[in-house]
Amino acid sequence: QPYRIAVIPGDGIGKEVVPEGVRILEAAAEKFGFRLDLEHHTFGSCDYYAEHGTMLPANWKEILTPTDAIFFGAVGWPATVPDHVSLWGSLLQFRREFDQYVNLRPVRLMPGVPCPLAGREPGDIDFYVVRENTEGEYSSVGGTMYPGTEREIVIQETVMSRHGVDRILKFAFDLAQSRPKKHLTSATKSNGIAITMPYWDQRVEAMGERYPDVRRDKYHIDILTAHFVLNPDRFDVVVGSNLFGDILSDLGPACTGTIGIAPSANINPEGRFPSLFEPVHGSAPDIAGQGIANPVGQIWTAAMMLEHLGEVDAANAIVAAIETALREPASRTRDLKGTATTREAADAVLRAFAAA
Amino acid sequence: QPYRIAVIPGDGIGKEVVPEGVRILEAAAEKFGFRLDLEHHTFGSCDYYAEHGTMLPANWKEILTPTDAIFFGAVGWPATVPDHVSLWGSLLQFRREFDQYVNLRPVRLMPGVPCPLAGREPGDIDFYVVRENTEGEYSSVGGTMYPGTEREIVIQETVMSRHGVDRILKFAFDLAQSRPKKHLTSATKSNGIAITMPYWDQRVEAMGERYPDVRRDKYHIDILTAHFVLNPDRFDVVVGSNLFGDILSDLGPACTGTIGIAPSANINPEGRFPSLFEPVHGSAPDIAGQGIANPVGQIWTAAMMLEHLGEVDAANAIVAAIETALREPASRTRDLKGTATTREAADAVLRAFAAA
Ligand SMILES: CC(C)[C@H](C(=O)O)[C@@H](O)C(=O)O
Ligand SMILES: CC(C)[C@H](C(=O)O)[C@@H](O)C(=O)O
Repeated sequence: QPYRIAVIPGDGIGKEVVPEGVRILEAAAEKFGFRLDLEHHTFGSCDYYAEHGTMLPANWKEILTPTDAIFFGAVGWPATVPDHVSLWGSLLQFRREFDQYVNLRPVRLMPGVPCPLAGREPGDIDFYVVRENTEGEYSSVGGTMYPGTEREIVIQETVMSRHGVDRILKFAFDLAQSRPKKHLTSATKSNGIAITMPYWDQRVEAMGERYPDVRRDKYHIDILTAHFVLNPDRFDVVVGSNLFGDILSDLGPACTGTIGIAPSANINPEGRFPSLFEPVHGSAPDIAGQGIANPVGQIWTAAMMLEHLGEVDAANAIVAAIETALREPASRTRDLKGTATTREAADAVLRAFAAA
Repeated sequence: QPYRIAVIPGDGIGKEVVPEGVRILEAAAEKFGFRLDLEHHTFGSCDYYAEHGTMLPANWKEILTPTDAIFFGAVGWPATVPDHVSLWGSLLQFRREFDQYVNLRPVRLMPGVPCPLAGREPGDIDFYVVRENTEGEYSSVGGTMYPGTEREIVIQETVMSRHGVDRILKFAFDLAQSRPKKHLTSATKSNGIAITMPYWDQRVEAMGERYPDVRRDKYHIDILTAHFVLNPDRFDVVVGSNLFGDILSDLGPACTGTIGIAPSANINPEGRFPSLFEPVHGSAPDIAGQGIANPVGQIWTAAMMLEHLGEVDAANAIVAAIETALREPASRTRDLKGTATTREAADAVLRAFAAA
């Protein structure tokens, strides 16, 4: 049985890095003896929007539901479509309607990557951010009173459900329990966000009682971002709401050198719907079209997807190839202070993958 | 006429660093020839709460309104009073009821402070975070549906008013316009927080038209935190909502070495109510009572307060003394990889102040 994969490059550098991710997928299939059935789609992009007036075709769910996974690039082209329209009409809709309630993002200092933090070595920083991915601060509930006048008031609701909070905490505690350090850090802001965040804390306490072997602590999000910079070696698994997880999973990769290499998985753990895999970076209009985007985030994303599909050896081999390649200057794009093009950097990883 | 200053040490290390801040204030009054009328208060602390069951006396507004400024330490002692109770019953109430809608926080890399970012020198990082301080994500509006059941849903509203957004933007644009770089960065998240944040962007655009000489850009909060680490030299004035400003004004000081030295001002620009000055750090229960807290944040806070009162020379002299003192190991507390006690570090600043 081949794996059915929907490939959605999206916008901007998504269109440049996804083909490189596909190359490593094909090399991995060849080397590890599995088959891929790749279905390439142009929807979920602002180009598609320009032509059709919507981000997705009406039957997108029928198209994507039977796939085993979605291999996604990046979406957004604010010059032609406002971000909230393009994102809510594609990525955020997938996350919600496919109930991909876990957003999992590794933060790891890789060899060869210049670290912006002084005195940190590969191995010092190695943790996961687990982000709630379907509710919380990203709601579409709210509106405007007295629009366009001096008295204008705009309201948006943050919504947390016990169902939604407990299931992400369970995933995070399970992950922490499976790791040697068994340490879970919760991101909160219960001193200022005085209704939803104390509730979050309370659920963390309740869930924690079921995991007596997991050491847990919590920090308010403001000081937590400070600790990411000052004490990144302190973390093992960090769990946060949709917004806090979003922030921490850009900040974490930045502390390890670049968001250009960071992957992420949007997971429906029950497997009722396909999960979606995408790099942490966005469509990067500022560098799009120049062939200089870092493809490593998309390639590492391919590894996360294969791991999810059960091809663990292939996934590990890709991550090892990334680690090997990043030691050579040939793999380093501009964000890593190198001069490699997207294609050259991907070639370096593919070479390391073939040689291993 | 002496300046009437309310002194509220609060909890934890607030009680240890406020006396050091008072010492520099008294030295400055002596040296620069102005008078201080200091009113010391024990309210606004969890000790007070333990005795009275409230954080503040009923007549706190009558007591504080006639003062020229409030010199504040830190509040919060979660072991005895939940943070949201202690904070909403004191600091957050002052900010709101005294309409201190500007929270102003300098981010500056000081000489002698070990920088966690590789290769950054004093002078490279020097900007302000301007935080909206009275509305936004810090609302008390919301509640719980089906409490205590599996179906529990908790909702909290973010509220932005045109009045509230425009006045903080005006302050930020005015500040940017007064500085050589004339550069304003807005923190947003309009791709995900799709109601209030597009509104924020729209008001930034509208206000920006009135400041054609101010260059403006905007970043989503996730990638903005990454830029604080990767490109902190890019910023001049950064404006954000209550929550985003809160995060950025802890992260910024962390990127310059420690939040232990960072000051902040909660300002009512119209002067209808007293403004409140406090260090960025909190009450730090983990190190409280040991006499090892860094007093420099409180001392720099004293300088911000004097500047606000019009004693600009005294304020500059204090900042200069901090810069001198931080070059000597004698001034460095544990957060700065030194061994100085609170008192010793303050002595070092006072010596430099006296010598200048
Ligand atoms: C203590 C807390 C409520 C407060 C805030 O979030 O405003 C603090 O973090 C600050 O930045 O002054
Ligand atoms: C593009 C944006 C809506 C998205 C998010 O905030 O979730 C992105 O930042 C991410 O982290 O995947």
